[in-house]
Amino acid sequence: MNMDQTDFQWVCDQAREAMLLQTVADLLEWDERTGMPIGGGDYRAQQVSHLRGKVHRLRTSEKYGETLLRLSESLPQGHDLASDAPATIRGLTRHWNRDHRLPDDLVERTARATVKGQQAWDAARKADDFSMFRDALAEVLVLKREAGERIAEGTDRSVYEALLDEYEPDARVHHLNRVFAELRTPLVRLIDQIRGASQQPNRELLERDYPVDIQRRLSRFVAEQVGFDFQRGRLDETSHPFCTTLGPSDCRILSRYDANWLPGGLLGTLHEAGHGMYEQGLRSDWFGLPPGSYCSLGIHESQSRLWENQVGRSRAFWQWLFEHTKEMFGSTLADVSLDDFHFAINQVQPSLIRVEADEATYNLHIIIRFDLEQQLIDGSLSVDDLPEAWNARYQSDLGICPPSAADGVLQDVHWSAGLIGYFPTYTLGNLASAQLYDAVKDQIEGLEEGFSEGHFQPLLAWLRSKVHERGQCESGNQIVENATGKPLCAESLIGYLQNKLGNLYGLKSPG
Amino acid sequence: MNMDQTDFQWVCDQAREAMLLQTVADLLEWDERTGMPIGGGDYRAQQVSHLRGKVHRLRTSEKYGETLLRLSESLPQGHDLASDAPATIRGLTRHWNRDHRLPDDLVERTARATVKGQQAWDAARKADDFSMFRDALAEVLVLKREAGERIAEGTDRSVYEALLDEYEPDARVHHLNRVFAELRTPLVRLIDQIRGASQQPNRELLERDYPVDIQRRLSRFVAEQVGFDFQRGRLDETSHPFCTTLGPSDCRILSRYDANWLPGGLLGTLHEAGHGMYEQGLRSDWFGLPPGSYCSLGIHESQSRLWENQVGRSRAFWQWLFEHTKEMFGSTLADVSLDDFHFAINQVQPSLIRVEADEATYNLHIIIRFDLEQQLIDGSLSVDDLPEAWNARYQSDLGICPPSAADGVLQDVHWSAGLIGYFPTYTLGNLASAQLYDAVKDQIEGLEEGFSEGHFQPLLAWLRSKVHERGQCESGNQIVENATGKPLCAESLIGYLQNKLGNLYGLKSPG
Repeated sequence: MNMDQTDFQWVCDQAREAMLLQTVADLLEWDERTGMPIGGGDYRAQQVSHLRGKVHRLRTSEKYGETLLRLSESLPQGHDLASDAPATIRGLTRHWNRDHRLPDDLVERTARATVKGQQAWDAARKADDFSMFRDALAEVLVLKREAGERIAEGTDRSVYEALLDEYEPDARVHHLNRVFAELRTPLVRLIDQIRGASQQPNRELLERDYPVDIQRRLSRFVAEQVGFDFQRGRLDETSHPFCTTLGPSDCRILSRYDANWLPGGLLGTLHEAGHGMYEQGLRSDWFGLPPGSYCSLGIHESQSRLWENQVGRSRAFWQWLFEHTKEMFGSTLADVSLDDFHFAINQVQPSLIRVEADEATYNLHIIIRFDLEQQLIDGSLSVDDLPEAWNARYQSDLGICPPSAADGVLQDVHWSAGLIGYFPTYTLGNLASAQLYDAVKDQIEGLEEGFSEGHFQPLLAWLRSKVHERGQCESGNQIVENATGKPLCAESLIGYLQNKLGNLYGLKSPG
Repeated sequence: MNMDQTDFQWVCDQAREAMLLQTVADLLEWDERTGMPIGGGDYRAQQVSHLRGKVHRLRTSEKYGETLLRLSESLPQGHDLASDAPATIRGLTRHWNRDHRLPDDLVERTARATVKGQQAWDAARKADDFSMFRDALAEVLVLKREAGERIAEGTDRSVYEALLDEYEPDARVHHLNRVFAELRTPLVRLIDQIRGASQQPNRELLERDYPVDIQRRLSRFVAEQVGFDFQRGRLDETSHPFCTTLGPSDCRILSRYDANWLPGGLLGTLHEAGHGMYEQGLRSDWFGLPPGSYCSLGIHESQSRLWENQVGRSRAFWQWLFEHTKEMFGSTLADVSLDDFHFAINQVQPSLIRVEADEATYNLHIIIRFDLEQQLIDGSLSVDDLPEAWNARYQSDLGICPPSAADGVLQDVHWSAGLIGYFPTYTLGNLASAQLYDAVKDQIEGLEEGFSEGHFQPLLAWLRSKVHERGQCESGNQIVENATGKPLCAESLIGYLQNKLGNLYGLKSPG
């Protein structure tokens, strides 16, 4: 490879400086969501937007773009593209190619519209009145459509794909449609069977009194045991859990606890720990550059869902943890068997709210959003017709109709915040987690027996080498294919759900 | 005043931007000291030094200096200098005049030497071996001397005064010497009398079991009651308490609790709340500019010491709080009377460690440091002779000789961190707190009766108008003189200590 080392060093330095300022802004937002005094909001917004502006300017400067293009032209064709330097140039060029197409003015208008949008959404949801959100959403859609058009220009991507690409590089709608269609029919059939099953779990035992301070200790213990490194991270609480990375050795996960709903805090913590272990497994010497950055949101979500679901809702995991959990909560769980507990945390029940959905119905929530947001962007669905379309889909896909906008079309913050094209990454994550888990079970003998004795290191080590350490040197599809031997498809997730839920609910094998 | 409004607006914008970045760096340091994962240290240092470098460049740019000088020349002579615009120009020019005299190279070398210095100090203190700190201290002194020489050049200030000026603008050594001398003789006599007094307090009752979570609640309650605004601030814990301001409505105070020493956490919290209420009382519309910035470290310390000592060690305060405190700690204080408790928290006892010293002996610790650091800077005392000089002064001034360097010359971090000229501001604060308190007692009838009923608002309102809202529109001396009718002197502090301690220890009136 005939690459100018000075140019390469320079763009790396620029990208690292941008990341340094971005992580500072991320700390400001972490702080805002973990206990900043309420009065600090206005000045905090100034601090964050000042830093985000600096980051955008660093990443879109003319010299930066020219240098990247020069470096790109010097890249060899075809082979060796997965090694660090080419991956760096390719990744940075990809970002620059998006960022520099968005004029400062559009970026600023979008920032303002999404702040306004989130405020309007919040008020509308509280008032249960979609009309209060209508105009703000329409404005966000106009701006996102413009951004998508600018990014798609001169490419073979659709406007929606251009937006999707920010979260899931190179994802294509036709591919997602195919995989989601593969998933939908068996899922709907499985959910129907479950609805009619004679065996049903006892949800009540998860709704007993679970003191928050005990949940907190248990969650920290579990995060530590599965491998989240508290020397390089911390666990805090917030109203909307998330994971954020503030440096190569400073990853912060956040959870929340409900004293009458045990799985929320515990499996939520496992979910965030999965995100966190991915971040902690990235190569820190490449921090701020593509080889040391997460691959895509779908891959990120595959890590969180794998630890939350394939591990955290497995019988083996609870063979290890159940007695300890019983002890910690005193008499609360004294009358409960491992089997009943395991069945209860795997309950399937069509419900209105995505974030509270079980493993099976969750993806139906996503598919609805994926379909509707495409229509909103291509103009085939108007904002005014959205609530009705939403309800119709819930009726047809989940068999329930939201009684209110607050529990229906207004439940998620994403669209108000301009996150269009974000939803499908959740289901991509679910698909990938199941497919990766099938592969690791094949490749590591006694994996689940290990869980029942508290050994999670073999799984984590496998994920480190197959996923985490790859950074952006491979695409999401390549990571899945290299780790599992086949492209991402719905087979593993369907098989996993049919198998686990079929056993629990005593269903006949599907056919 | 014939001032160019465009110039004025421009320098204000620059100064506000510098403050915006400085507060971001301050948040990074707050976070570092309140729970950042240990692994985050290296990257955090990069983030902080990057931001501090940007702040220094903003504050020393050529255009910034030229514009300030042009504005300074347009200032009227003599009158109206306390109003906002002239105070802004004067204050910013003052800072620029210091900052731009320090070449980037010297700033960087000093930053490195003080990081190294603190590490060497920490190691030397742990090993109780001054020789391990000797070279690092010598290097810091060389660099600080160079800085002082550059700042003093062309002025009538000494090198030491040039350093002192960073913390206490326009302070003069001859003035400090005079006030400190006024203070020393009566203090030494008072301490001697106390040593020989037949009435002595019972320290043991403060060393009982005081569970930290109860101390925490009590401290928060007290901070809230005296007027620290938790809508615009928060209270956390750290190993070395401090107060930091991260925005016009985001002031954070930090405390620490020792389960066997009640006054440490409680009065420490009151101390930091005093700092915090000063910051919260600054005019937020001038945040980042001299009219909305604290006047000097001496004035800052006057606010913390006033709430800690004049209020927090007063009988009236404990008339209000004692029953509540007894209730909170259950049986621990059941056998203790208000009088015995009040006597115990006012115990005077010469001791080795400044930060643990009582109100009377505290200032003797400061005077020793003030004298020695002047000699270190002017070269009349060598680093090698410092330990012996230190011990000699403790023997002569406090009547005790440190048995080790760790409890002697190595006890404070300041010199290793390059904070030369910082110590005297502590005693200036003590002097000012007593003098301000004398004045407010004269001016507000029933002030202390109010304390005994939990009314602190009259005191806070007076401090707001006489001190906080003045920002840097008046110098420290002017604030004291305008509020109390006379220049800063030792009379109030001496009278306050003789009166309170004389009564408690049953001393004959002095004279």
